[in-house]
Amino acid sequence: MKPALRIAVAGLGTVGAGTVQLLQRQASLLADRCGRRLDVVAVAARDHGRDRGFALDGIAWHDDPVAMAAAPDIDVVVEVIGGAEGVARRVVETALAKGRHVVTANKALLAHHGTALARLAEERELTLAFEAAVAGGIPIIKGLREGLAANRVTALHGILNGTCNYILTEMRQTGRDFGEVLAEAQALGYAEADPSFDVDGVDAAHKLSVLTSVAFGTAVDFASVHIEGIRHISALDIRFAEELGYRIKLLGIARLTPQGVEQRVHPCMVPVETPLAVVDGVLNAVVATGDFVEKVLFEGRGAGGGPTASAVVADLVDIARERRVPCFTVPAARLEPGRAVPMERRTGAYYVRLMVRDQAGVLADVAAALRDQGVSVESFLQHGRSPEDTVPVVLTTHDTDEAAMRRALDAIAGLGSVVERPTMIRIETL
Amino acid sequence: MKPALRIAVAGLGTVGAGTVQLLQRQASLLADRCGRRLDVVAVAARDHGRDRGFALDGIAWHDDPVAMAAAPDIDVVVEVIGGAEGVARRVVETALAKGRHVVTANKALLAHHGTALARLAEERELTLAFEAAVAGGIPIIKGLREGLAANRVTALHGILNGTCNYILTEMRQTGRDFGEVLAEAQALGYAEADPSFDVDGVDAAHKLSVLTSVAFGTAVDFASVHIEGIRHISALDIRFAEELGYRIKLLGIARLTPQGVEQRVHPCMVPVETPLAVVDGVLNAVVATGDFVEKVLFEGRGAGGGPTASAVVADLVDIARERRVPCFTVPAARLEPGRAVPMERRTGAYYVRLMVRDQAGVLADVAAALRDQGVSVESFLQHGRSPEDTVPVVLTTHDTDEAAMRRALDAIAGLGSVVERPTMIRIETL
Repeated sequence: MKPALRIAVAGLGTVGAGTVQLLQRQASLLADRCGRRLDVVAVAARDHGRDRGFALDGIAWHDDPVAMAAAPDIDVVVEVIGGAEGVARRVVETALAKGRHVVTANKALLAHHGTALARLAEERELTLAFEAAVAGGIPIIKGLREGLAANRVTALHGILNGTCNYILTEMRQTGRDFGEVLAEAQALGYAEADPSFDVDGVDAAHKLSVLTSVAFGTAVDFASVHIEGIRHISALDIRFAEELGYRIKLLGIARLTPQGVEQRVHPCMVPVETPLAVVDGVLNAVVATGDFVEKVLFEGRGAGGGPTASAVVADLVDIARERRVPCFTVPAARLEPGRAVPMERRTGAYYVRLMVRDQAGVLADVAAALRDQGVSVESFLQHGRSPEDTVPVVLTTHDTDEAAMRRALDAIAGLGSVVERPTMIRIETL
Repeated sequence: MKPALRIAVAGLGTVGAGTVQLLQRQASLLADRCGRRLDVVAVAARDHGRDRGFALDGIAWHDDPVAMAAAPDIDVVVEVIGGAEGVARRVVETALAKGRHVVTANKALLAHHGTALARLAEERELTLAFEAAVAGGIPIIKGLREGLAANRVTALHGILNGTCNYILTEMRQTGRDFGEVLAEAQALGYAEADPSFDVDGVDAAHKLSVLTSVAFGTAVDFASVHIEGIRHISALDIRFAEELGYRIKLLGIARLTPQGVEQRVHPCMVPVETPLAVVDGVLNAVVATGDFVEKVLFEGRGAGGGPTASAVVADLVDIARERRVPCFTVPAARLEPGRAVPMERRTGAYYVRLMVRDQAGVLADVAAALRDQGVSVESFLQHGRSPEDTVPVVLTTHDTDEAAMRRALDAIAGLGSVVERPTMIRIETL
């Protein structure tokens, strides 16, 4: 049997503690599968005293994770502290500089510094692995980089943030509005006290930028991701979506087009009969489209100690088995800069909801504004009438481009009988 | 750059020709990803003349695939001939004996000889890879063996045969009976002229036995799989399933229980709101349950030239990258014999349909037969009345064990007012 793989874990929150627990509980199974032991030899966290559900016997304790990353007799550093800068970044850079493999769950770090860190690792023939950074327990990084390695991946569509998916699912099932469901999610621990990273789409965008690089072989380009969150989604829109045969989901979408790479995170209407429409609650899912394999769906838990630890340890198993592949499918030194396609170039159908004063002529004005931009209406809904009051008017369009749609919405917003900024949600049929 | 990987393809049917086409079309992308070229240097098939959509320039032609497997200057043999014995087996054994890696899509061969072939390969430090043998383009072997490597997998539930899934989907959507839909599937090329391997569950059982070994680290044990097909599923049962909130799917199920390993292929009623219920048409899907990751779903195309070639070439990429793991997750020499759990030990709920003469007292007799075996009824459906004629009576049970259920069905079948053998379909909630 080969010598044990010596593992140091930086950060003992839910994921770090879950990882140590898993490594201890599955020790013999993992040794069978790897032909060597996977031993936790060091951990670093702030609070030494707290019970984290595992025995510290034989494990060196460090208060300083950066010092731990530089300590002798370590093969791999697991970084589960989080954050794009500061301690997490120093831990990873120190570990790589010292010749240690790195396993991280840190999507923010990868979104901002992924290409540079991958180069650093590959120059030293080290692994920088990050299965846990995207979609928790779902083996999507491996699925794309190895499982679909024979394909040119042309599109990714993912539900990448469990908090948003939980909120949208609850809103649909209970008819309640965003704020109320968010407060409940916070009370249940499904949303952070400061929820903006999740509900404003930033977390999903971090993950999407990492997936995009793995799938398309382009340098990580978080700055080019178009990001919209779910705060503006109303119970009314969710009801109209149902009526039209759609569900509203926050999707991360990356597409390879002749013009370059589209990366966007925004609420979408997806047809109820498509697989992503029925992925509910805190689950995550990704549909990858490849030129030979067609569509493959991966679905599972996107967060939580057990599922995320499962992904961290899958990476450790690869290292123990001495299996190494380029971080982003092709060597980091050869990643192409992705030519970013601006959001204005998006083509597809749109859902639009207007609040209008119920006066004669308003529909003619709306129709004219759409026609003037070449936007063709597919369906049109107006329920009830309420003279002198405002009523919602909903329409969906045939495929059009985003730039034309925005010009039409600007014109519509300027109409006297339209009383608030129109709500627009993109329709994605995959 | 490392020397090219020299590939020989035995069999040029849909999958073999698709594999050569893929390797030619994606040559530069694959070289980027592997750091070396993947070159087809030899092919073997019966009919030299036929156009198969790729150029034969620079490729040695063999009429005898076994001779090709033994020819010099080959690194990997791709076996896509099929069949548990005969030529396919000789090709694989010859290739391994000559020190060549093997990639195969042949589930029958693996179901019958998988453990022995894996030992042969591992003794010689060769790869025997078979991603394409189960669920076509879905990277489920890699997903289990590497993606979920940190888990003790406790259960697998899979839609593993696209032909059956297509037939059951069509039956539901059109209300037609099995025979009519099968004939149409044959006309469309979704079912073979002799459909028994598919519709009697043998193909799904081959695949299940391979998945079971990969997931549980037990020797391949096809002989222990309990197999039932879909010929007895009627349009009537499909309608009742809908009414009760279920869909009928042919599932392959493997479960690790304290008593051992359950392996079974049979039609199941699955609740409409569960992910496998909405996997329709020719798609395949597998839900793996692990002790840390919980449930992960993989879904995609289970057959066809493109998707299957995608899986074959994913294995070739692993070989080109010199990534090798044990065939069945742990070394073949250490695979445990799976203690097979007999079908009589299955525990769960049941759907039963009786055709009864509509006479007073029949329900009391049926209820007594169930009570005598300790089987508790959960719901009960009878539509319409038709004195002197036969009418269907449907019931579902609470969890009970298969042995008790069978005894109750024997007793019910013997009642004078029950006019044909009762139909029984197991309910699986996952």
